[in-house]
Amino acid sequence: MITALGGGVGASKFLEGLLAIIGQEHLNVVVNTADDITFSGLRISPDVDTIIYRLCGIVDKQKGWGLKGDTFHCLKALGGFGLDTWFNLGDRDLATHILRTSLKQKGFTSSEITSKIAADLGLPDNVSILPMTDADVETWVVTCEGEIHFQEYLVKRKMDIEVNRVTIRGIDQAEPAPGVLEAIKESRVIIICPSNPIISVGPILQVHGIRKALEFSEAKIIGISPLIGGVPLRGPADRLMKGLGLRVSSTQIARLYQDFLDVMVIDTKDSSEAQEINEIGIESFVVNTLMADREKARALATALLSIL
Amino acid sequence: MITALGGGVGASKFLEGLLAIIGQEHLNVVVNTADDITFSGLRISPDVDTIIYRLCGIVDKQKGWGLKGDTFHCLKALGGFGLDTWFNLGDRDLATHILRTSLKQKGFTSSEITSKIAADLGLPDNVSILPMTDADVETWVVTCEGEIHFQEYLVKRKMDIEVNRVTIRGIDQAEPAPGVLEAIKESRVIIICPSNPIISVGPILQVHGIRKALEFSEAKIIGISPLIGGVPLRGPADRLMKGLGLRVSSTQIARLYQDFLDVMVIDTKDSSEAQEINEIGIESFVVNTLMADREKARALATALLSIL
Repeated sequence: MITALGGGVGASKFLEGLLAIIGQEHLNVVVNTADDITFSGLRISPDVDTIIYRLCGIVDKQKGWGLKGDTFHCLKALGGFGLDTWFNLGDRDLATHILRTSLKQKGFTSSEITSKIAADLGLPDNVSILPMTDADVETWVVTCEGEIHFQEYLVKRKMDIEVNRVTIRGIDQAEPAPGVLEAIKESRVIIICPSNPIISVGPILQVHGIRKALEFSEAKIIGISPLIGGVPLRGPADRLMKGLGLRVSSTQIARLYQDFLDVMVIDTKDSSEAQEINEIGIESFVVNTLMADREKARALATALLSIL
Repeated sequence: MITALGGGVGASKFLEGLLAIIGQEHLNVVVNTADDITFSGLRISPDVDTIIYRLCGIVDKQKGWGLKGDTFHCLKALGGFGLDTWFNLGDRDLATHILRTSLKQKGFTSSEITSKIAADLGLPDNVSILPMTDADVETWVVTCEGEIHFQEYLVKRKMDIEVNRVTIRGIDQAEPAPGVLEAIKESRVIIICPSNPIISVGPILQVHGIRKALEFSEAKIIGISPLIGGVPLRGPADRLMKGLGLRVSSTQIARLYQDFLDVMVIDTKDSSEAQEINEIGIESFVVNTLMADREKARALATALLSIL
């Protein structure tokens, strides 16, 4: 059994590669839900959907999120009513959000809803998508213009504003979703996906008991840095780390995971950091981490499992 | 000032004709909301939407409801999740329902939401669409297979089952929406649209105070029978009347409105009923009521106003 933690496009690409090489071994994916948002009354879980869509082979690969071939007629009509349209909701994608919102109102948990969506969209049987928690948790960022939802910062503002602080609303009350601690306990290897350490992996580690479970896990815990040549391929990892007063480096990310991480996988462009990572008591493993296509993602996953 | 009461495709076609001939005179439309339904968590108000879409010139004229040129990608995807898809929700039409549901959750009333939708879609300034009530009211029909929502009977079952009784859930607590009683009081003419007397006009008349306001109104009150040659053009008026033990005739419909109606407009095919209607103390007016196109609807409206 393998368990992976993460969220976002980088994680989804890596997981697609991993899934291609593990045969029937069970893969649990503990997914960040702190970038969930309610938009026009619909509850949207971007990281969960991006990973499900990718692993079901229906993601829009060009954008990295959403459904391939989707149309946007409803969104345009919502705009006609003066509603915000900066969050891109495709017509078929909307069905996922309508279903999630409707089931949530009926009292189903995020875990139950996620399982249903995954099964209906054709997720392979040996994969479990586990939201990190069934509690409602949201990442907000504090900027000089006030506090805004992380999605507003990322999608609407396109990261054009400095972030001084990140708050994960509701995280204090968040318990791990069913199966999360068991997955961590029973896996032979745990992978921290190449995801943003502040807003994708960070919230997962703050859910009550997860960090402790990782510390006590007997699994080999391997992290993959989302930085290549010291910068993220997409997303605001560097901006957020800088804003929080952190050095932007794979070594710094390894430090954030120091209490539980065994191995840090870094890109060949960052090989100069290998020694420094070793010095904080974490093995380093240098490999090409750029996942330009599915084959490259598969090669990265193969290299990673070779560490064992 | 003119006020019309009704709901459904027949009403919307007539109102389009009426609007074309009244110049700048104000037209209030008191619309049935008892066929509202919650579908996949979205609150849908079919009669309100059908009339707004028609008067804004964006209705699908072939079907009589929905938006012209709409697509159905989201509905198909909802079907993939095993959700009911018998209620036809177009992608652009969905925006109306998402807006309504979202505003309702924020505490806005049906009246406020209806006004916003109408204004945003371009309803002419001299028309007010007034839901009959801001309370949640739903028509259910009692059949030999149990009680089902009216929309399930109409759309899913295609009226293939006998109805023994109609119950309007929530009607006891329903007060008229703001403006409804004033509209009735201040109008020079009140028109009962060619709508189903049981499930379109019936619920409006059961809202607390509306029937009494009609009785005391000084306006000329003119009803248009939805029957042509003794049968409705579409919808279950005949089946429901039969199921309730009523005779299916324009005279019977006139009887249902007897306490407030001044004139009953009937089709030339039903001219034999004119005498009988006169005998119950209601004037009859015989004219061609088939609204095959906008011009015919306009001609019907012109004939109706000529009664004054």
